[in-house]
Amino acid sequence: MAVYTEVSDEDLIDFLTRYDIGELVSYKGIAEGVENSNYYLQTDRGNFILTLYEKRVDPGDLPFFLGLMDHLAARGVSCPTPIHDRDGTALQTLAERPAAIISYLAGVSPRRIMLKHCAPLGEALAGMHLATEDFAPERLNALCVDAWRPLFERCLEGPQSGIDGHGAEDVCPGITSLVSDELGYLEATWPDDLPKGVIHADLFPDNVFFIGDRLSGLIDFYFACNDFYAYDLAICLNAWCFEPDLSFNISKARHMLNAYRRTRPFSEAELKALPTLARGAALRFLLTRLYDLINHPPGALVTPKDPMEYARKLRFHQQVTRPGEYGLD
Amino acid sequence: MAVYTEVSDEDLIDFLTRYDIGELVSYKGIAEGVENSNYYLQTDRGNFILTLYEKRVDPGDLPFFLGLMDHLAARGVSCPTPIHDRDGTALQTLAERPAAIISYLAGVSPRRIMLKHCAPLGEALAGMHLATEDFAPERLNALCVDAWRPLFERCLEGPQSGIDGHGAEDVCPGITSLVSDELGYLEATWPDDLPKGVIHADLFPDNVFFIGDRLSGLIDFYFACNDFYAYDLAICLNAWCFEPDLSFNISKARHMLNAYRRTRPFSEAELKALPTLARGAALRFLLTRLYDLINHPPGALVTPKDPMEYARKLRFHQQVTRPGEYGLD
Repeated sequence: MAVYTEVSDEDLIDFLTRYDIGELVSYKGIAEGVENSNYYLQTDRGNFILTLYEKRVDPGDLPFFLGLMDHLAARGVSCPTPIHDRDGTALQTLAERPAAIISYLAGVSPRRIMLKHCAPLGEALAGMHLATEDFAPERLNALCVDAWRPLFERCLEGPQSGIDGHGAEDVCPGITSLVSDELGYLEATWPDDLPKGVIHADLFPDNVFFIGDRLSGLIDFYFACNDFYAYDLAICLNAWCFEPDLSFNISKARHMLNAYRRTRPFSEAELKALPTLARGAALRFLLTRLYDLINHPPGALVTPKDPMEYARKLRFHQQVTRPGEYGLD
Repeated sequence: MAVYTEVSDEDLIDFLTRYDIGELVSYKGIAEGVENSNYYLQTDRGNFILTLYEKRVDPGDLPFFLGLMDHLAARGVSCPTPIHDRDGTALQTLAERPAAIISYLAGVSPRRIMLKHCAPLGEALAGMHLATEDFAPERLNALCVDAWRPLFERCLEGPQSGIDGHGAEDVCPGITSLVSDELGYLEATWPDDLPKGVIHADLFPDNVFFIGDRLSGLIDFYFACNDFYAYDLAICLNAWCFEPDLSFNISKARHMLNAYRRTRPFSEAELKALPTLARGAALRFLLTRLYDLINHPPGALVTPKDPMEYARKLRFHQQVTRPGEYGLD
């Protein structure tokens, strides 16, 4: 939650001369996002977001992300659109960082998920999947099933050198056996032939905007990659369908899944794989949260999220024996 | 640089029903300001700032600050204006904090001060002083000359209990004798009969907005208090008229002071007191920075500012023998 890179008014005014978006009226650093520096930008022609990409983003991936946003916007998916300069370039350099100006998307992320949010979410996710069918560039999922065991092994090694952190069992007692067993199961049963394409891969509520009850758009495509479409749904099952007390809300899941399949019908194989994919999605967020917690410098800017939330979600999915338990008829 | 208090979309939508400013379209936490939590707020009727007052602000002072902004705006001083709800109330409660919605002021704070900024600054400061002449409420300057010695003594006691900080001499070698001598001088020579009224008391460049070369407004009145008008000028001499290498730029001072006195002519006594007031202003910022540095928890959000910058400015003012050295004819 911070702006990491400062941009001076002079540098910004100079930077804006490349574009045809008007004169600078104001800009303010936004205290959101833990990966990049974001500024709210106002010109005499409109509102924009200026993003400076910090070191956790691979600059080599930026053409994929920005190209995807261009592609989605061109196909009517409501999402921020990269602004191109007079030479047609979206990806720039500012303050020694890769940088882009993106259109400003109105809307508010829901803090408390209600049933009414879930059908619009499913419909928007399906719409995004359909819109990317003819998007040619590809990006591997750096957090796919094959990446989980190496990530877990790095967790077991303890904090990276120079960080005064804790071991995995210190922060999450019992985590070692839970994850080891689950890795064995998932590596043996993970599907390999489901419909695939570009997925969002991080569609948590803070990446979905609403105005009133209407979904106004999706943001933050910086984890997007090629993987099973149904895995995106499995991530959303984890991110949207549990209550704050971590009980599973089957009505939310039913609304989301039914709205999704009205727009993009899914196959029997996708449906059958859902419990396994949901276990995988829970493990993926468990592992990245565990890694961040172990490597969290005391007093650092960002409060680490609790991996145990995803251990509990994982245990729920382990008990699921058929897709009907996710609310599907 | 952070939002300290989170506000949920539901609480904010509910809060906005008190006002006649439209429906919520979006809001984002702003990574600026170290005292309070600020949100950029967009409704279907316009842009606003939502401020939640955190614990460093005395809630008892808020009616003074908000009343002052109302008063200034009514007299044509360009500054953020508190928005009153349907009952006429500006000061509210949100997320268990005192809170207010303020109009959004366009403009950009200059990061690099240029000569062209200084005359508009002087003119705006004088305009603000004239506009407050009929503002009845009063607020003592909590950082006036009498407060500096107790503040220095708290610095010499070292970090507050529970903070793993450093002693004054550890962070600023030589500071004890410099400040002790200066306190003796200032307590003996501080004027007591200069023209007095409401001053801004913190008019640093980040509190002054420009659009192009035009000053668009003053912000952040949360240090405003009753004190000598000329002391506000002395603060600006320190904050605006030194170069990054801490050399004094007499042209900037001349432009600022001459523009000020064209709008509000100052007396011979104010002019004569300027070197002493400038020493006091330098000492005031030296001391608060020293206190913050000594009590800075390692790894905390905010990077402390360097007190030694003001030790060097203080030494410059100590050499000044007549107001002419500030560029006045």
